[in-house]
Amino acid sequence: MTFAAVDVIRTKRDGGTLSDAQIDWVVDAYTRGEVADEQMSALAMAILLRGMTPGEIARWTAAMIASGERLDLSAVSRPTVDKHSTGGVGDKITLPLTPLVAACGAAVPQLSGRGLGHTGGTLDKLEAIPGWRASLTNEEFVAQLQDVGAVVCAAGEGLAPADRKLYALRDVTATVEAIPLIASSIMSKKIAEGTGALVLDVKVGSGAFMKSADDARELARTMVDLGKAHKVATVALLTDMSTPLGLAVGNAVEVAESVEVLAGGGPSDVVELTLALAEEMVAAAGLRVDPSQVLASGQAMDSWRAMIRAQGGDPAAPLAVARETETVRAERDGYVSTVDALGIGVAAWRLGAGRARKEDPVSAAAGVVLHKKPGDPVRAGEPLFELRTDDASRIPAALAEAAGAVTVAEVAPAPRALVMERIA
Amino acid sequence: MTFAAVDVIRTKRDGGTLSDAQIDWVVDAYTRGEVADEQMSALAMAILLRGMTPGEIARWTAAMIASGERLDLSAVSRPTVDKHSTGGVGDKITLPLTPLVAACGAAVPQLSGRGLGHTGGTLDKLEAIPGWRASLTNEEFVAQLQDVGAVVCAAGEGLAPADRKLYALRDVTATVEAIPLIASSIMSKKIAEGTGALVLDVKVGSGAFMKSADDARELARTMVDLGKAHKVATVALLTDMSTPLGLAVGNAVEVAESVEVLAGGGPSDVVELTLALAEEMVAAAGLRVDPSQVLASGQAMDSWRAMIRAQGGDPAAPLAVARETETVRAERDGYVSTVDALGIGVAAWRLGAGRARKEDPVSAAAGVVLHKKPGDPVRAGEPLFELRTDDASRIPAALAEAAGAVTVAEVAPAPRALVMERIA
Repeated sequence: MTFAAVDVIRTKRDGGTLSDAQIDWVVDAYTRGEVADEQMSALAMAILLRGMTPGEIARWTAAMIASGERLDLSAVSRPTVDKHSTGGVGDKITLPLTPLVAACGAAVPQLSGRGLGHTGGTLDKLEAIPGWRASLTNEEFVAQLQDVGAVVCAAGEGLAPADRKLYALRDVTATVEAIPLIASSIMSKKIAEGTGALVLDVKVGSGAFMKSADDARELARTMVDLGKAHKVATVALLTDMSTPLGLAVGNAVEVAESVEVLAGGGPSDVVELTLALAEEMVAAAGLRVDPSQVLASGQAMDSWRAMIRAQGGDPAAPLAVARETETVRAERDGYVSTVDALGIGVAAWRLGAGRARKEDPVSAAAGVVLHKKPGDPVRAGEPLFELRTDDASRIPAALAEAAGAVTVAEVAPAPRALVMERIA
Repeated sequence: MTFAAVDVIRTKRDGGTLSDAQIDWVVDAYTRGEVADEQMSALAMAILLRGMTPGEIARWTAAMIASGERLDLSAVSRPTVDKHSTGGVGDKITLPLTPLVAACGAAVPQLSGRGLGHTGGTLDKLEAIPGWRASLTNEEFVAQLQDVGAVVCAAGEGLAPADRKLYALRDVTATVEAIPLIASSIMSKKIAEGTGALVLDVKVGSGAFMKSADDARELARTMVDLGKAHKVATVALLTDMSTPLGLAVGNAVEVAESVEVLAGGGPSDVVELTLALAEEMVAAAGLRVDPSQVLASGQAMDSWRAMIRAQGGDPAAPLAVARETETVRAERDGYVSTVDALGIGVAAWRLGAGRARKEDPVSAAAGVVLHKKPGDPVRAGEPLFELRTDDASRIPAALAEAAGAVTVAEVAPAPRALVMERIA
């Protein structure tokens, strides 16, 4: 069935519901270039402002999946379970989590992305490991999933090409923040990837995409329902992103912190979230194992090494160290009151850890290392955080962002729950 | 000042007010191609759904004027006054009105457009006159205005190029129906054209762009305020467009009907609206003349002939006559109840009088000629209307549109006022 793009846009503009046939047509015609970018961006803005019914979101997601190939993981003998995070600052959880869940007996098919703006990308972090490569063929992907149980790699061009095209368009037209479009973008890729179960980490707070718990809850609910409709057992955790996860924000520094966690140490919040997500994933995969015991046993570290080696990386190689550092110290005694995730994320970005445009390179060594987290007591003169970069000219702009992000007060702040809510 | 397009879009998307600097930048950057079509269409959709304050509309209009040249009519010794209609079916009023107002002593600088869809274009109608040309240089335009007092021609490429580009974009992205964008599009061209006064004919009804009086009133109020802000004395009439104006809908047939009016005859509604608009224009130009006396004197016809000749046309040449006609007759006795403007407009379009794409040619001879108007008594077998075309294959589709547009009932409908409201 063929429609005029202008009629489809008008339907949504005027608050109507798009028919299944309209959705199938517009997604397919856009992928083929028959619907122009300026038409799709007007439609995306109308969707952002008018919303979509659950039925429209489900059909839109199905149409995005149908725009490309769908991987078949039936050759993998272990139960498959994946995790997706909506993105945060210092969010290196995929790095310890993927090998941990593999060591618990599941297969984790992590197709990841790169960072844009102030949130880091998992592939950028792993590329700080000498030799590691992000691109695998579909055959390599399935073979590594069977052999090692853990793969983190770039999504192939063949998965949900409609989403790839639409995502780039939304980025330049201020139509990113539409819950129907966010949910369908994430879920179309995860469903096309072929995972049997999925755990979503939906971030809330200054460093996250969703600033309010209400928005995060709506996004989580929408994605969980989409997963179930496509027979992917899906659970979501709402987790706090008002403060960075762990102490390290950057690429090499986050790899190092992840290895600490796999070695049984690491910051308590990173350990807590890794275990919380691992428990959900193990349960969703139908396994009865305690991830904290597997982590303590060292088996997760073995899986990490196998996973890195399988993609050409040397898990023992030294990581890049920044040439320039700048340490910021407390001016008064007290307690660290806030470490704002957005400010720290933007500072790390300015230092070279992230990219402004998708063609830009990232620096492995750049980043921010926190010495204190909210609630920690501090004395005047003690280090609060340090900035790291290979390019000293980047320090002033980063300092301006980070300085306001960290505050010290007379009294300790009320503690915040890291895992805020579970939506199933 | 430079902005990121995405920030400008986001401001309007979230219901904010664009700053003067943002508006100046985005209109200029779009005209230069620095803001992409897909960004402007997302912004247009956000404007359509979020609206604009009067201050934003005024600045947007000023930015569109500033995107190109502004004509200087100070060399014209007569007072200048123009008229703009928002477009309707059978709306040939510009043809008798322009020479009539010139004959009253004003200069009328009518920059007109072509038809798209079911509403006809003034230039298309005049091109039915053998030899007549629509394009004039700025020098020819000013000279004819001085000598004849009446010009109807195509707007040059130099006037409001931002509007030209934006209008084409809105047409394919379902963002035409935004009152701030309609008002700024019309007024930027009229103000750039340099007229001293302006009378707006804002149509309401099935054949018009504005289907409701409330929308038409809001559009009229917005345009009148924009005119005044730019020191153009502006008045608007809200007029009925539920039924076509006059009996002729097409190109050559509307020229013929206009000449009848100039000769002192013609359908009463065309005469009524021509005189109502002429009175407003004459008053806005500061003249004290009675247009009905000037029409009766034959001076308006003299101006018409001079205006057509000045642009190469032969006012005495015979007009094209269609090769094929199809007459539809009443099936019962009664009164004509409705002659729906939209249905008749679409029928004329299907017969070849209008164009679907702006590259399409139009037929001079094609159109619909009504034999009856609402309220007229009719007997079974009497002609209701006839379809005219050079291409017989177009008749069935046109007949399907027109047949439902004309209804006969036992009682006469309540009479409708043609001029509904005056907004100054």
